[in-house]
Amino acid sequence: MSTSAPPIVLTGDRTTGPLHLGHYAGSLKNRVRLQNTHRQFLLLADAQALTDNAHDPQKVRHNVLEVAFDYLAVGIDPALTTICVQSALPALAELTMLYMNFVTIARLERNPTIKTEIQLRGFERDVPAGFLCYPVAQAADITAFKAVLVPVGEDQAPLIEQTNEIVRRVNRQIGRDLLPEAEAMIPTVGRLPGIDGKAKMSKSQGNAIPLSASPDDIRAAVRQMYTDPDHFRVSDPGRVEGNVVFTYLDAFGEDNAMIEDLKARYRHGGLGDTTVKRHLEDVLQALLAPIRERRARYAADPAYVMDVLRRGTGEARDRTQATLNEVRDGLGLFRLPRN
Amino acid sequence: MSTSAPPIVLTGDRTTGPLHLGHYAGSLKNRVRLQNTHRQFLLLADAQALTDNAHDPQKVRHNVLEVAFDYLAVGIDPALTTICVQSALPALAELTMLYMNFVTIARLERNPTIKTEIQLRGFERDVPAGFLCYPVAQAADITAFKAVLVPVGEDQAPLIEQTNEIVRRVNRQIGRDLLPEAEAMIPTVGRLPGIDGKAKMSKSQGNAIPLSASPDDIRAAVRQMYTDPDHFRVSDPGRVEGNVVFTYLDAFGEDNAMIEDLKARYRHGGLGDTTVKRHLEDVLQALLAPIRERRARYAADPAYVMDVLRRGTGEARDRTQATLNEVRDGLGLFRLPRN
Repeated sequence: MSTSAPPIVLTGDRTTGPLHLGHYAGSLKNRVRLQNTHRQFLLLADAQALTDNAHDPQKVRHNVLEVAFDYLAVGIDPALTTICVQSALPALAELTMLYMNFVTIARLERNPTIKTEIQLRGFERDVPAGFLCYPVAQAADITAFKAVLVPVGEDQAPLIEQTNEIVRRVNRQIGRDLLPEAEAMIPTVGRLPGIDGKAKMSKSQGNAIPLSASPDDIRAAVRQMYTDPDHFRVSDPGRVEGNVVFTYLDAFGEDNAMIEDLKARYRHGGLGDTTVKRHLEDVLQALLAPIRERRARYAADPAYVMDVLRRGTGEARDRTQATLNEVRDGLGLFRLPRN
Repeated sequence: MSTSAPPIVLTGDRTTGPLHLGHYAGSLKNRVRLQNTHRQFLLLADAQALTDNAHDPQKVRHNVLEVAFDYLAVGIDPALTTICVQSALPALAELTMLYMNFVTIARLERNPTIKTEIQLRGFERDVPAGFLCYPVAQAADITAFKAVLVPVGEDQAPLIEQTNEIVRRVNRQIGRDLLPEAEAMIPTVGRLPGIDGKAKMSKSQGNAIPLSASPDDIRAAVRQMYTDPDHFRVSDPGRVEGNVVFTYLDAFGEDNAMIEDLKARYRHGGLGDTTVKRHLEDVLQALLAPIRERRARYAADPAYVMDVLRRGTGEARDRTQATLNEVRDGLGLFRLPRN
């Protein structure tokens, strides 16, 4: 009886800053689960981070280890998940260069994700070539690992479509289905809002709770958290929808009965923000305390973490190089015999 | 007394077909000279050839060896010149990906060389990303070898300007002049026209004399060569300007006195096309016979040529990898310690 190999899943993060609760809710928690059922690779995407941070490579470098600390702190187990450094995998650059011949500039410019991101960054006509082409680099990442599942936010789904277009073109040129198509794995929970109620938690917006937040940071963040702006007096009825405190309770609380009770009392009137916030603070302190402690232990032993990255990247190097060789041979490129 | 190292020069050819007399006149002859005074690298540009030949990688592969045969046949000496295969140098792809973050799409679209080439190829809006970005890849090629001289046709000079722009941006980010700027070395002789009188000799136009042309091919090509369309009778005065036979005599003949005599008699009237063509045929047969013979010898011993490429590419790999490491360290990218 043969058992089939677990499906390969690839995700990762641009190394532009330490991760925060938004990452935890939206993807890290999911990855910790996936590593038990899937063959998981995590890419510390420092090369992709440079596509809009070429003026600050130091930041990108510094955060490679910071993000690795976050991974290990939340429970990514290097025995189950391969963590690797993108810029140390030359096959990814080589595959990207090959794939760039199979996609047009017009197609890249039509990509809705890229359009939005270009607008957000205010690039206008001054889009770095590397930025416009990063979906091609992402196709190289995904296919190099032969990943069939790619957990991404809903806004990133067009990137997977772009990958699959490239996969089909390359396979057609090769004459067989060498590269698998990938499927976007969109999280069922919505994106976690920032503590100010804005749609996206982000370090640069100052509305994020980092995974390394101290107990005081957590307390302060919960205190200033956006609730129902019309809920002036404790006795007033309050709104739960769009109330960040309740959104976070839903995302991180485990005692559903208690949360439903709080919601009912808040809606009815007679429950103050301070009380609900105290509940949320307890939840977040309990969630983040072990993460913070593990993170501090890893941060105190960077040599160990470096070793994790070295081993993971070594394994990834072999795997991505093997795919590159297959693609090159499939296309029939020149092959120089090694001596 | 210290002697300074000879300046580094890089050229090469897209491997899309065997080379012809146009390449010989415009660049190969010059490279044979340069190898005595310069540290010369020749790039078999198969990766660049794919940027507009992704649908026909076999052609690109096949011509890697064909072009190498041509190089050796005209007198490129692998003991003096390093011949290497572009697609076997991963550092070039990695440098390209880095440089793509230092140049905008708008800038690439403004490049006059690329504009013309896009038009020539009828790409219109369907320009492959790899094609629009090939000037960035070329900047990677040039800088990876730290070449300071790049022999190119006049129409390619904007590509060197693009390279130097990238060099300045990367150097500014690094904080010192790590990468040298390069100078275009424009040939003093004009481009050799096709045998039909069209501005450019090209295999695809069917107006080229390949370096491997047989004596019969040469005879046939000279016979059909474009002369003065108004020179009907031998006794009529004929035009020398724009007359391909005389252009070729100027390019390849060595007996200047005889050529001047032929020109005078042709202009005066009384000298037939057949006679001038016989002179040119003698010149071309004498030029191409030893090249054809040497080429046949190399083509009969591909293992030797493969070995030349393997050694050249090995040397180029070390050199380009060293530059990549310098650029990465200069920018301050993450460096994974190897064990």
